[in-house]
Amino acid sequence: MASPPPPKTLTIAGSDSGGGAGIQADLKTFTALGTYGLSVITALTSQNTLGVDGVVAVNPPFVSKQLRAVIDDIGVDTIKIGMLHNHHIIEAVAETLTALFPPAGSSKLPPIVLDPVMISTSEHVLLDPSSLPALKTHLLPLCTLVTPNIAEAKKLSSLERIDSVEDMKAAAKKISELGSHAVLVKGGHLDERQVYDVLYETANGEYTVFEHPRIHTKNTHGTGCTQSSAIAAFLSKGNSLREAIQLATDYVQAALLASFDIGHGSGPLNHLVAILPRALAAPSDLDPHPFTSYLIRSCAVDWTMYTRKHPFILGLKDGTLPRESFIHFLKQDYIFLTHYARIHALAAYKSFSMEEIDAATDIVKHIVRESKHHIAFCQSWGISLEEFHSTPESGHTVAYTRYVLDTGVSNSLLALRVATAPCLLGYGDVGTWLHDDPGTKREGNAYWPWIEGYAGEDFQKAVRKGRDLLEESVKANPLSPAQLAEMVNIFRKATRLEVGFWEQSWSLQ
Amino acid sequence: MASPPPPKTLTIAGSDSGGGAGIQADLKTFTALGTYGLSVITALTSQNTLGVDGVVAVNPPFVSKQLRAVIDDIGVDTIKIGMLHNHHIIEAVAETLTALFPPAGSSKLPPIVLDPVMISTSEHVLLDPSSLPALKTHLLPLCTLVTPNIAEAKKLSSLERIDSVEDMKAAAKKISELGSHAVLVKGGHLDERQVYDVLYETANGEYTVFEHPRIHTKNTHGTGCTQSSAIAAFLSKGNSLREAIQLATDYVQAALLASFDIGHGSGPLNHLVAILPRALAAPSDLDPHPFTSYLIRSCAVDWTMYTRKHPFILGLKDGTLPRESFIHFLKQDYIFLTHYARIHALAAYKSFSMEEIDAATDIVKHIVRESKHHIAFCQSWGISLEEFHSTPESGHTVAYTRYVLDTGVSNSLLALRVATAPCLLGYGDVGTWLHDDPGTKREGNAYWPWIEGYAGEDFQKAVRKGRDLLEESVKANPLSPAQLAEMVNIFRKATRLEVGFWEQSWSLQ
Repeated sequence: MASPPPPKTLTIAGSDSGGGAGIQADLKTFTALGTYGLSVITALTSQNTLGVDGVVAVNPPFVSKQLRAVIDDIGVDTIKIGMLHNHHIIEAVAETLTALFPPAGSSKLPPIVLDPVMISTSEHVLLDPSSLPALKTHLLPLCTLVTPNIAEAKKLSSLERIDSVEDMKAAAKKISELGSHAVLVKGGHLDERQVYDVLYETANGEYTVFEHPRIHTKNTHGTGCTQSSAIAAFLSKGNSLREAIQLATDYVQAALLASFDIGHGSGPLNHLVAILPRALAAPSDLDPHPFTSYLIRSCAVDWTMYTRKHPFILGLKDGTLPRESFIHFLKQDYIFLTHYARIHALAAYKSFSMEEIDAATDIVKHIVRESKHHIAFCQSWGISLEEFHSTPESGHTVAYTRYVLDTGVSNSLLALRVATAPCLLGYGDVGTWLHDDPGTKREGNAYWPWIEGYAGEDFQKAVRKGRDLLEESVKANPLSPAQLAEMVNIFRKATRLEVGFWEQSWSLQ
Repeated sequence: MASPPPPKTLTIAGSDSGGGAGIQADLKTFTALGTYGLSVITALTSQNTLGVDGVVAVNPPFVSKQLRAVIDDIGVDTIKIGMLHNHHIIEAVAETLTALFPPAGSSKLPPIVLDPVMISTSEHVLLDPSSLPALKTHLLPLCTLVTPNIAEAKKLSSLERIDSVEDMKAAAKKISELGSHAVLVKGGHLDERQVYDVLYETANGEYTVFEHPRIHTKNTHGTGCTQSSAIAAFLSKGNSLREAIQLATDYVQAALLASFDIGHGSGPLNHLVAILPRALAAPSDLDPHPFTSYLIRSCAVDWTMYTRKHPFILGLKDGTLPRESFIHFLKQDYIFLTHYARIHALAAYKSFSMEEIDAATDIVKHIVRESKHHIAFCQSWGISLEEFHSTPESGHTVAYTRYVLDTGVSNSLLALRVATAPCLLGYGDVGTWLHDDPGTKREGNAYWPWIEGYAGEDFQKAVRKGRDLLEESVKANPLSPAQLAEMVNIFRKATRLEVGFWEQSWSLQ
């Protein structure tokens, strides 16, 4: 029953109680970008939008222990490293990674993105300055990408000034000499209007400049954490390094634009910007048809009236339905079938693949076949072909058929299919129920052959096909809550029109 | 520029390095359900799918410090409390909450959901048994809801057996006497096929039984954490307690159904089950028209050819376009306008609110007006009315107009609008550019009046209206990536047909 797991992304970083930075920002980013987040906590901070008012470092052996627990059992696709606080933790992380992925070993280090967090936006020292040599010597050589801002790039490169894109290129190249595969120097504070981030890749000696408009907002808490964890997330999803940086930059830009004011200081980015609520779960063993079962559940009262409680079907069940009601029903049902065939022809017109056109046409052919049986069946009830064709269409039949046709013209192909679903699913359900229920009269029930028709394999196969078509189109193109609500409205309306269809014949008596 | 903040949900709990339970599960749940997550960490665990191999409790004063940092600055809408590890932490949390929200104070305690975590699925003791009295005495009286499973309910209620729904009711009532507003006893292990959760609410003395099918999967790591944090998330979104429990139960069911195998033991729930990737950010100051700017960016090469580089418009710009090309263009453009009016009439038909019908009709009226100017303009170019009406529709004009019409019939209203967008946005852009560019010939350029027409306020107003209509419908009903890709295809095709429209007149020469 298990689903395929999403890519696994690990953050090794500090905790931010305020939820905007640290492992909290990382886990939010991993989740928003569709990966499975794991975390090794290096330090706890007591923190909010105004700043950090306390830090407790985790004992280095316990940092290693968390890292071993994760790698030994679960494994990871990419690692993002953030705040490490002191050189003991730096050494513990570097040693544990080297022990878990020995240089000569068969399992390679996963891509590692290091955000060399040193000082918080609120000027709190997050990395003991004496730890810089340990970072340079032990950790940088293990990294795929290091993402310093200008201040951090100065410390790592020992360059005194980084005032231009050219300076950033020089810094990136210099930092790369410490051993990482690539360096992204983030141009946070160079220019008022544009931001330039410079990537240097050691393997090919190439520079890439990523340029984006500066966003003027005070809510920038966690920008660096979010960018580096987003890069790690996109790498874990199979993007190249440049793609991952571009996609992560787009995400951070969008999250900054949608940032919000909470607290009294620098608010967080809006990590939710990349996601929409999913209205329906994917099909599963327990609920293999989530869309159609949701539609039916959402109009339970009308559905029960249509498929279980209406006196017309109870009259079919015990054979007491007046003959004139049934004959009226049969005549109007034939007219209905004509329009029902048209609507599926329209579905074929609205389809853009041969498979879909074929599937819709099969339904039209099925209805045409059904209508021939219908005529033969009606003749067995003494209705002549002439009488049959001269039957005027009732107001209610017009209402139902034209509602479905109009939905098909004015709305999407899915809406068209939803409008036809109550007929298909409902007759299938009624047929099976009447057929299988021990309380249904069989011997001497004039309506038994009709029941057998809808319970029969030919019709039931069409029901399953129609249902699968609906489920597949929603699976391929998941609905937003608003779209789902629209589909429920259409399904409910058509279900009520089905109830009215029983009613128009029943009320004759 | 700041967006309105989402509801704020706080978890006070332990950290699970494996990402499936603890604050990690809580933050994932908060994010997936659209709330802003904060966290106060009470203990660190070194943990994976096989179990817990190490726990380090956080110093109680630092637990309080994190809690104060969060509440003092940011505030919270609901609190979920999970693993507290020992009675010192229980007391620190209870005292700090009471100090921050004093019983006689003006700010009330937010709703608190307590998951009384005692023992992990892997039998690891997560709450020191001697701490039970502290939990009962200090914390339960502050809680809105307590959510014990059967084992925890036995400890809290001192009942020896809880073997039935009736026993669960008795336990819930007994636990409620410790002071919480409500108790949800979760019937984890009672029945093979169905799960019953029993809610008791003190205020009205009512029981509610929540029933759902048992899901047989080994991947249940973090179920309790997820359920309690989902209840907290739904409460923060304004749901009633019963609604929140039902919605949280639905979420947990879906997340269990979509759970996946990672590691060698009990894998995690799939927290991602409630979300879809969002293809486009919401409009913002920096990017107020994200949909139309995305469409244009996505077919940049064709768009530039259409609006900047085609020799037809360059000929308009410097006045060198051959007269016969322009006359051919004017004649075909009139035919185009006729069908363009029809497509907007179809948009009115496909609309279901008077506002939308009115907006579409305004466009039709605008086109009719434009066509009259067009005739007058053509007469100024020496084209007689007779000649005008007898012009045969060119193959390319047929292609373009019927493509747009077919899209309108066979696809959604949005797709119809997207198919018309290159014409509206492109002519608006070309008109403005030709008008404002200093390199455009004005004096003695026979095409200057044409340029002025499209740069004029009447046309530009229509452009803005059409663009806003597109943006609003996407804002109201965000697109999935697949839907966005479909819209890009339509926009690109129509843009290429626009290029072809210049081409058919240009290539006459």
